[in-house]
Amino acid sequence: MIAPTAFCAAGAGEWQIETIRSILGPTLPAAGFLKITDGDAGKNEQSNLWTLRGTAGHARYVTRSETNQLLERQEALGRKGATCAALIPIRKSETWWTLAQDERRSIMEEKSRHFGIGMDYLPAVARKLYHSRDLGEPFDFLTWFEFSPDSASAFEELLGRLRATEEWQYVEREVEIRLTRTMIPQSTADR
Amino acid sequence: MIAPTAFCAAGAGEWQIETIRSILGPTLPAAGFLKITDGDAGKNEQSNLWTLRGTAGHARYVTRSETNQLLERQEALGRKGATCAALIPIRKSETWWTLAQDERRSIMEEKSRHFGIGMDYLPAVARKLYHSRDLGEPFDFLTWFEFSPDSASAFEELLGRLRATEEWQYVEREVEIRLTRTMIPQSTADR
Repeated sequence: MIAPTAFCAAGAGEWQIETIRSILGPTLPAAGFLKITDGDAGKNEQSNLWTLRGTAGHARYVTRSETNQLLERQEALGRKGATCAALIPIRKSETWWTLAQDERRSIMEEKSRHFGIGMDYLPAVARKLYHSRDLGEPFDFLTWFEFSPDSASAFEELLGRLRATEEWQYVEREVEIRLTRTMIPQSTADR
Repeated sequence: MIAPTAFCAAGAGEWQIETIRSILGPTLPAAGFLKITDGDAGKNEQSNLWTLRGTAGHARYVTRSETNQLLERQEALGRKGATCAALIPIRKSETWWTLAQDERRSIMEEKSRHFGIGMDYLPAVARKLYHSRDLGEPFDFLTWFEFSPDSASAFEELLGRLRATEEWQYVEREVEIRLTRTMIPQSTADR
Protein backbone atom coordinates (compact mmCIF):
# COMPACT_ATOMS: atom_id res chain seq x y z
CA MET A 1 0.00 0.00 0.00
CA ILE A 2 1.01 3.58 -0.60
CA ALA A 3 2.07 5.15 2.72
CA PRO A 4 4.25 7.97 4.01
CA THR A 5 8.02 7.58 4.39
CA ALA A 6 9.87 9.42 7.17
CA PHE A 7 13.28 11.07 6.89
CA CYS A 8 14.54 11.28 10.48
CA ALA A 9 17.50 13.30 11.73
CA ALA A 10 19.03 10.95 14.30
CA GLY A 11 22.22 9.91 16.09
CA ALA A 12 22.81 7.04 13.66
CA GLY A 13 21.59 6.01 10.25
CA GLU A 14 22.44 4.79 6.77
CA TRP A 15 23.29 8.32 5.62
CA GLN A 16 25.73 10.73 7.24
CA ILE A 17 24.66 14.37 6.99
CA GLU A 18 27.51 16.49 5.58
CA THR A 19 25.77 19.88 5.40
CA ILE A 20 22.37 21.44 5.90
CA ARG A 21 21.85 24.89 4.41
CA SER A 22 18.93 27.11 3.61
CA ILE A 23 18.48 28.17 -0.01
CA LEU A 24 15.37 30.23 0.88
CA GLY A 25 13.62 30.68 4.24
CA PRO A 26 14.39 29.05 7.60
CA THR A 27 16.90 26.18 7.65
CA LEU A 28 16.59 22.92 9.62
CA PRO A 29 18.58 22.13 12.79
CA ALA A 30 22.01 20.50 12.35
CA ALA A 31 22.12 16.73 12.82
CA GLY A 32 24.59 13.86 12.36
CA PHE A 33 22.71 11.19 10.46
CA LEU A 34 19.56 10.54 8.46
CA LYS A 35 17.45 7.45 8.95
CA ILE A 36 14.72 6.55 6.43
CA THR A 37 11.77 4.65 7.87
CA ASP A 38 8.05 4.00 7.67
CA GLY A 39 6.20 7.28 8.15
CA ASP A 40 4.18 6.51 11.23
CA ALA A 41 7.05 4.84 13.05
CA GLY A 42 9.32 7.80 12.29
CA LYS A 43 6.83 10.37 13.47
CA ASN A 44 6.43 8.80 16.88
CA GLU A 45 10.11 8.36 17.73
CA GLN A 46 10.90 11.03 20.30
CA SER A 47 14.67 10.65 19.92
CA ASN A 48 14.68 12.16 16.41
CA LEU A 49 15.86 15.78 16.14
CA TRP A 50 13.40 16.35 13.33
CA THR A 51 11.34 14.24 10.98
CA LEU A 52 10.11 15.08 7.49
CA ARG A 53 7.43 12.90 5.95
CA GLY A 54 6.32 12.42 2.37
CA THR A 55 4.60 9.84 0.18
CA ALA A 56 6.14 8.51 -3.02
CA GLY A 57 2.82 8.29 -4.83
CA HIS A 58 1.81 8.58 -8.47
CA ALA A 59 3.30 11.27 -10.73
CA ARG A 60 1.12 14.38 -10.97
CA TYR A 61 2.26 16.13 -14.15
CA VAL A 62 4.21 13.92 -16.56
CA THR A 63 2.48 12.60 -19.67
CA ARG A 64 2.60 9.03 -20.97
CA SER A 65 5.29 9.96 -23.49
CA GLU A 66 7.43 11.57 -20.78
CA THR A 67 6.83 8.64 -18.41
CA ASN A 68 8.08 6.24 -21.07
CA GLN A 69 11.23 8.31 -21.63
CA LEU A 70 11.86 8.30 -17.87
CA LEU A 71 11.32 4.56 -17.54
CA GLU A 72 13.81 4.02 -20.33
CA ARG A 73 16.56 6.20 -18.88
CA GLN A 74 16.27 6.29 -15.12
CA GLU A 75 18.01 3.84 -12.80
CA ALA A 76 17.01 2.63 -9.36
CA LEU A 77 18.13 4.10 -6.07
CA GLY A 78 20.71 2.13 -4.08
CA ARG A 79 23.31 1.70 -6.83
CA LYS A 80 26.64 0.57 -5.35
CA GLY A 81 28.64 3.57 -6.56
CA ALA A 82 25.97 6.14 -5.67
CA THR A 83 27.45 7.13 -2.31
CA CYS A 84 26.38 10.79 -2.51
CA ALA A 85 22.84 11.95 -1.83
CA ALA A 86 20.84 15.11 -1.33
CA LEU A 87 17.47 15.59 0.31
CA ILE A 88 15.83 18.84 -0.80
CA PRO A 89 12.61 19.83 1.00
CA ILE A 90 10.65 22.54 -0.82
CA ARG A 91 7.52 24.54 -0.07
CA LYS A 92 5.76 26.44 -2.83
CA SER A 93 3.63 29.56 -2.35
CA GLU A 94 -0.15 29.76 -1.94
CA THR A 95 -0.19 31.45 -5.36
CA TRP A 96 1.19 28.25 -6.87
CA TRP A 97 -1.42 26.06 -5.19
CA THR A 98 -4.35 28.20 -6.31
CA LEU A 99 -3.26 27.84 -9.94
CA ALA A 100 -5.25 25.27 -11.95
CA GLN A 101 -3.65 22.05 -13.17
CA ASP A 102 -3.09 23.33 -16.72
CA GLU A 103 -1.46 26.53 -15.39
CA ARG A 104 0.94 24.63 -13.12
CA ARG A 105 1.79 22.21 -15.91
CA SER A 106 2.43 25.09 -18.30
CA ILE A 107 4.86 26.76 -15.89
CA MET A 108 6.65 23.50 -15.08
CA GLU A 109 7.05 22.15 -18.57
CA GLU A 110 6.33 24.61 -21.36
CA LYS A 111 8.12 27.46 -19.55
CA SER A 112 10.55 25.79 -17.16
CA ARG A 113 11.32 22.44 -18.83
CA HIS A 114 11.52 20.80 -15.39
CA PHE A 115 11.11 17.32 -16.87
CA GLY A 116 13.57 17.97 -19.70
CA ILE A 117 16.24 19.32 -17.32
CA GLY A 118 15.94 16.23 -15.11
CA MET A 119 16.25 13.98 -18.19
CA ASP A 120 19.58 15.62 -19.11
CA TYR A 121 21.13 14.17 -15.94
CA LEU A 122 19.78 10.63 -16.24
CA PRO A 123 20.87 8.01 -15.50
CA ALA A 124 23.70 9.69 -13.51
CA VAL A 125 21.46 11.45 -10.98
CA ALA A 126 18.71 9.13 -9.70
CA ARG A 127 15.75 10.90 -8.19
CA LYS A 128 12.67 10.09 -6.11
CA LEU A 129 9.89 12.55 -5.30
CA TYR A 130 7.86 12.44 -2.07
CA HIS A 131 4.63 14.45 -1.72
CA SER A 132 4.22 16.06 1.71
CA ARG A 133 1.58 18.76 1.33
CA ASP A 134 -1.52 16.62 1.96
CA LEU A 135 0.09 15.23 5.13
CA GLY A 136 0.04 18.64 6.82
CA GLU A 137 3.86 18.83 6.74
CA PRO A 138 5.89 22.08 6.73
CA PHE A 139 7.16 21.32 3.20
CA ASP A 140 5.17 20.40 0.06
CA PHE A 141 7.78 18.08 -1.49
CA LEU A 142 10.88 16.17 -0.51
CA THR A 143 13.17 15.22 -3.38
CA TRP A 144 15.83 12.58 -2.83
CA PHE A 145 18.79 12.48 -5.24
CA GLU A 146 21.52 9.80 -5.42
CA PHE A 147 24.69 9.93 -7.50
CA SER A 148 28.35 8.87 -7.56
CA PRO A 149 31.12 11.30 -6.53
CA ASP A 150 32.01 11.54 -10.26
CA SER A 151 28.61 13.08 -10.96
CA ALA A 152 28.78 15.67 -8.17
CA SER A 153 29.45 18.59 -10.53
CA ALA A 154 26.69 17.47 -12.89
CA PHE A 155 24.36 17.48 -9.88
CA GLU A 156 25.39 21.08 -9.02
CA GLU A 157 24.58 22.08 -12.58
CA LEU A 158 21.16 20.37 -12.38
CA LEU A 159 20.31 22.32 -9.22
CA GLY A 160 21.49 25.58 -10.75
CA ARG A 161 19.38 25.11 -13.86
CA LEU A 162 16.24 24.19 -11.90
CA ARG A 163 16.63 27.14 -9.54
CA ALA A 164 16.87 29.53 -12.49
CA THR A 165 13.48 28.47 -13.90
CA GLU A 166 10.20 30.39 -13.75
CA GLU A 167 8.79 27.52 -11.67
CA TRP A 168 11.29 28.31 -8.90
CA GLN A 169 9.81 31.79 -8.48
CA TYR A 170 6.97 29.98 -6.71
CA VAL A 171 9.32 28.30 -4.22
CA GLU A 172 9.12 30.08 -0.88
CA ARG A 173 11.21 27.71 1.25
CA GLU A 174 14.03 25.41 0.22
CA VAL A 175 16.59 23.57 2.33
CA GLU A 176 19.47 21.53 0.92
CA ILE A 177 20.75 18.54 2.89
CA ARG A 178 23.87 16.80 1.56
CA LEU A 179 24.69 13.26 2.64
CA THR A 180 27.11 10.37 2.12
CA ARG A 181 26.33 6.73 2.54
CA THR A 182 27.74 5.09 5.66
CA MET A 183 27.52 1.51 4.34
CA ILE A 184 26.61 -0.52 1.27
CA PRO A 185 22.81 -0.86 1.26
CA GLN A 186 21.34 -4.32 1.92
CA SER A 187 18.24 -3.67 -0.10
CA THR A 188 16.18 -0.78 -1.34
CA ALA A 189 13.09 -2.85 -1.94
CA ASP A 190 11.24 -1.07 0.85
CA ARG A 191 11.89 2.34 -0.69
CA MET B 1 -2.10 25.18 6.75
CA ILE B 2 -3.36 22.28 4.65
CA ALA B 3 -3.92 19.26 6.91
CA PRO B 4 -6.00 16.07 7.03
CA THR B 5 -9.64 16.08 8.14
CA ALA B 6 -11.10 13.04 9.93
CA PHE B 7 -14.57 11.59 9.44
CA CYS B 8 -15.26 9.63 12.62
CA ALA B 9 -18.05 7.12 13.19
CA ALA B 10 -19.06 7.85 16.78
CA GLY B 11 -21.88 7.75 19.31
CA ALA B 12 -22.75 11.40 18.73
CA GLY B 13 -22.04 14.04 16.10
CA GLU B 14 -23.40 16.74 13.84
CA TRP B 15 -24.55 14.18 11.27
CA GLN B 16 -26.78 11.18 11.87
CA ILE B 17 -25.93 8.16 9.73
CA GLU B 18 -29.04 6.86 7.94
CA THR B 19 -27.49 4.07 5.86
CA ILE B 20 -24.10 2.62 5.00
CA ARG B 21 -23.97 0.35 1.97
CA SER B 22 -21.32 -1.08 -0.28
CA ILE B 23 -21.49 -0.23 -3.96
CA LEU B 24 -18.37 -2.31 -4.68
CA GLY B 25 -16.12 -4.26 -2.31
CA PRO B 26 -16.28 -4.51 1.49
CA THR B 27 -18.61 -2.14 3.34
CA LEU B 28 -17.88 -0.22 6.56
CA PRO B 29 -19.31 -1.16 9.99
CA ALA B 30 -22.68 0.33 10.94
CA ALA B 31 -22.58 3.40 13.19
CA GLY B 32 -24.96 6.01 14.58
CA PHE B 33 -23.31 9.36 13.94
CA LEU B 34 -20.50 11.03 12.03
CA LYS B 35 -18.21 13.58 13.61
CA ILE B 36 -15.90 15.69 11.44
CA THR B 37 -12.68 16.79 13.14
CA ASP B 38 -9.03 17.64 12.70
CA GLY B 39 -7.24 14.61 11.21
CA ASP B 40 -4.74 13.88 13.93
CA ALA B 41 -7.22 14.36 16.74
CA GLY B 42 -9.72 12.03 15.03
CA LYS B 43 -7.15 9.32 14.41
CA ASN B 44 -6.16 9.09 18.05
CA GLU B 45 -9.63 8.89 19.59
CA GLN B 46 -10.10 5.28 20.64
CA SER B 47 -13.87 5.62 21.09
CA ASN B 48 -14.50 5.98 17.33
CA LEU B 49 -15.83 2.91 15.53
CA TRP B 50 -13.88 3.86 12.44
CA THR B 51 -12.14 6.93 11.10
CA LEU B 52 -11.50 7.92 7.50
CA ARG B 53 -9.02 10.68 6.80
CA GLY B 54 -8.47 12.90 3.78
CA THR B 55 -7.02 16.28 2.86
CA ALA B 56 -9.00 18.93 1.01
CA GLY B 57 -6.02 20.14 -0.96
CA HIS B 58 -5.61 21.70 -4.40
CA ALA B 59 -7.55 20.40 -7.42
CA ARG B 60 -5.57 17.89 -9.47
CA TYR B 61 -7.28 17.85 -12.87
CA VAL B 62 -9.48 20.86 -13.56
CA THR B 63 -8.23 23.58 -15.87
CA ARG B 64 -8.42 27.34 -15.27
CA SER B 65 -11.51 27.63 -17.44
CA GLU B 66 -13.25 24.80 -15.54
CA THR B 67 -12.16 26.26 -12.19
CA ASN B 68 -13.71 29.59 -13.09
CA GLN B 69 -16.99 27.91 -14.06
CA LEU B 70 -17.00 26.06 -10.74
CA LEU B 71 -16.27 29.21 -8.74
CA GLU B 72 -19.16 30.93 -10.46
CA ARG B 73 -21.72 28.20 -9.82
CA GLN B 74 -20.85 26.30 -6.68
CA GLU B 75 -22.09 27.26 -3.24
CA ALA B 76 -20.49 26.69 0.14
CA LEU B 77 -21.14 23.76 2.45
CA GLY B 78 -23.29 24.41 5.52
CA ARG B 79 -26.31 26.02 3.79
CA LYS B 80 -29.28 26.14 6.13
CA GLY B 81 -31.57 24.01 3.95
CA ALA B 82 -28.91 21.45 3.04
CA THR B 83 -29.86 18.89 5.67
CA CYS B 84 -28.99 15.83 3.56
CA ALA B 85 -25.44 14.64 3.02
CA ALA B 86 -23.50 11.73 1.60
CA LEU B 87 -19.93 10.65 2.24
CA ILE B 88 -18.62 8.42 -0.54
CA PRO B 89 -15.21 6.82 0.00
CA ILE B 90 -13.66 5.41 -3.18
CA ARG B 91 -10.55 3.44 -4.01
CA LYS B 92 -9.33 3.19 -7.59
CA SER B 93 -7.27 0.33 -9.02
CA GLU B 94 -3.50 0.11 -9.37
CA THR B 95 -4.06 0.29 -13.14
CA TRP B 96 -5.55 3.76 -12.66
CA TRP B 97 -2.61 4.97 -10.58
CA THR B 98 0.00 3.77 -13.06
CA LEU B 99 -1.64 5.81 -15.83
CA ALA B 100 0.11 9.10 -16.63
CA GLN B 101 -1.53 12.46 -15.87
CA ASP B 102 -2.73 13.01 -19.45
CA GLU B 103 -4.23 9.51 -19.60
CA ARG B 104 -6.16 9.96 -16.33
CA ARG B 105 -7.36 13.40 -17.42
CA SER B 106 -8.49 12.01 -20.78
CA ILE B 107 -10.55 9.26 -19.11
CA MET B 108 -12.05 11.65 -16.54
CA GLU B 109 -12.96 14.49 -18.84
CA GLU B 110 -12.80 13.76 -22.53
CA LYS B 111 -14.39 10.31 -22.07
CA SER B 112 -16.34 10.49 -18.81
CA ARG B 113 -17.23 14.21 -18.51
CA HIS B 114 -16.80 13.96 -14.72
CA PHE B 115 -16.49 17.74 -14.37
CA GLY B 116 -19.39 18.43 -16.72
CA ILE B 117 -21.70 15.99 -14.92
CA GLY B 118 -20.93 17.63 -11.56
CA MET B 119 -21.64 21.07 -13.08
CA ASP B 120 -25.12 19.94 -14.13
CA TYR B 121 -26.10 19.62 -10.44
CA LEU B 122 -24.66 22.92 -9.21
CA PRO B 123 -25.53 24.78 -7.12
CA ALA B 124 -28.07 22.25 -5.77
CA VAL B 125 -25.51 19.59 -4.81
CA ALA B 126 -22.50 21.10 -3.03
CA ARG B 127 -19.40 18.95 -3.06
CA LYS B 128 -16.01 18.77 -1.38
CA LEU B 129 -13.24 16.35 -2.30
CA TYR B 130 -10.70 14.97 0.19
CA HIS B 131 -7.54 13.18 -0.99
CA SER B 132 -6.65 10.13 1.10
CA ARG B 133 -4.23 8.06 -0.95
CA ASP B 134 -0.99 9.76 0.13
CA LEU B 135 -2.01 9.37 3.79
CA GLY B 136 -1.83 5.57 3.59
CA GLU B 137 -5.61 5.28 4.04
CA PRO B 138 -7.77 2.36 2.77
CA PHE B 139 -9.55 4.68 0.31
CA ASP B 140 -8.04 7.10 -2.26
CA PHE B 141 -10.77 9.77 -2.06
CA LEU B 142 -13.59 10.83 0.20
CA THR B 143 -16.27 12.95 -1.44
CA TRP B 144 -18.69 14.88 0.74
CA PHE B 145 -22.01 16.01 -0.79
CA GLU B 146 -24.61 18.33 0.77
CA PHE B 147 -28.09 19.09 -0.59
CA SER B 148 -31.65 19.87 0.47
CA PRO B 149 -34.34 17.12 0.61
CA ASP B 150 -35.82 18.70 -2.56
CA SER B 151 -32.63 17.84 -4.45
CA ALA B 152 -32.45 14.21 -3.29
CA SER B 153 -33.62 12.78 -6.61
CA ALA B 154 -31.22 15.01 -8.55
CA PHE B 155 -28.45 13.64 -6.33
CA GLU B 156 -29.47 10.04 -7.18
CA GLU B 157 -29.26 10.94 -10.84
CA LEU B 158 -25.81 12.47 -10.39
CA LEU B 159 -24.54 9.26 -8.76
CA GLY B 160 -26.09 7.12 -11.46
CA ARG B 161 -24.47 9.13 -14.25
CA LEU B 162 -21.03 9.11 -12.62
CA ARG B 163 -21.16 5.36 -11.96
CA ALA B 164 -21.97 4.69 -15.62
CA THR B 165 -18.81 6.45 -16.86
CA GLU B 166 -15.63 4.84 -18.19
CA GLU B 167 -13.79 6.39 -15.23
CA TRP B 168 -15.84 4.26 -12.81
CA GLN B 169 -14.45 1.09 -14.39
CA TYR B 170 -11.28 1.92 -12.45
CA VAL B 171 -13.15 2.09 -9.12
CA GLU B 172 -12.48 -1.08 -7.14
CA ARG B 173 -14.10 -0.14 -3.82
CA GLU B 174 -16.96 2.26 -3.14
CA VAL B 175 -19.07 2.74 -0.03
CA GLU B 176 -22.05 5.08 0.21
CA ILE B 177 -22.89 6.69 3.56
CA ARG B 178 -26.11 8.73 3.76
CA LEU B 179 -26.60 11.26 6.52
CA THR B 180 -28.95 13.91 7.87
CA ARG B 181 -27.98 16.93 9.87
CA THR B 182 -28.81 16.76 13.58
CA MET B 183 -28.70 20.53 14.16
CA ILE B 184 -28.27 23.85 12.38
CA PRO B 185 -24.53 24.36 11.94
CA GLN B 186 -22.86 27.10 13.98
CA SER B 187 -20.13 27.65 11.47
CA THR B 188 -18.40 25.84 8.68
CA ALA B 189 -15.33 28.00 8.77
CA ASP B 190 -13.23 25.08 10.03
CA ARG B 191 -14.21 22.92 7.08
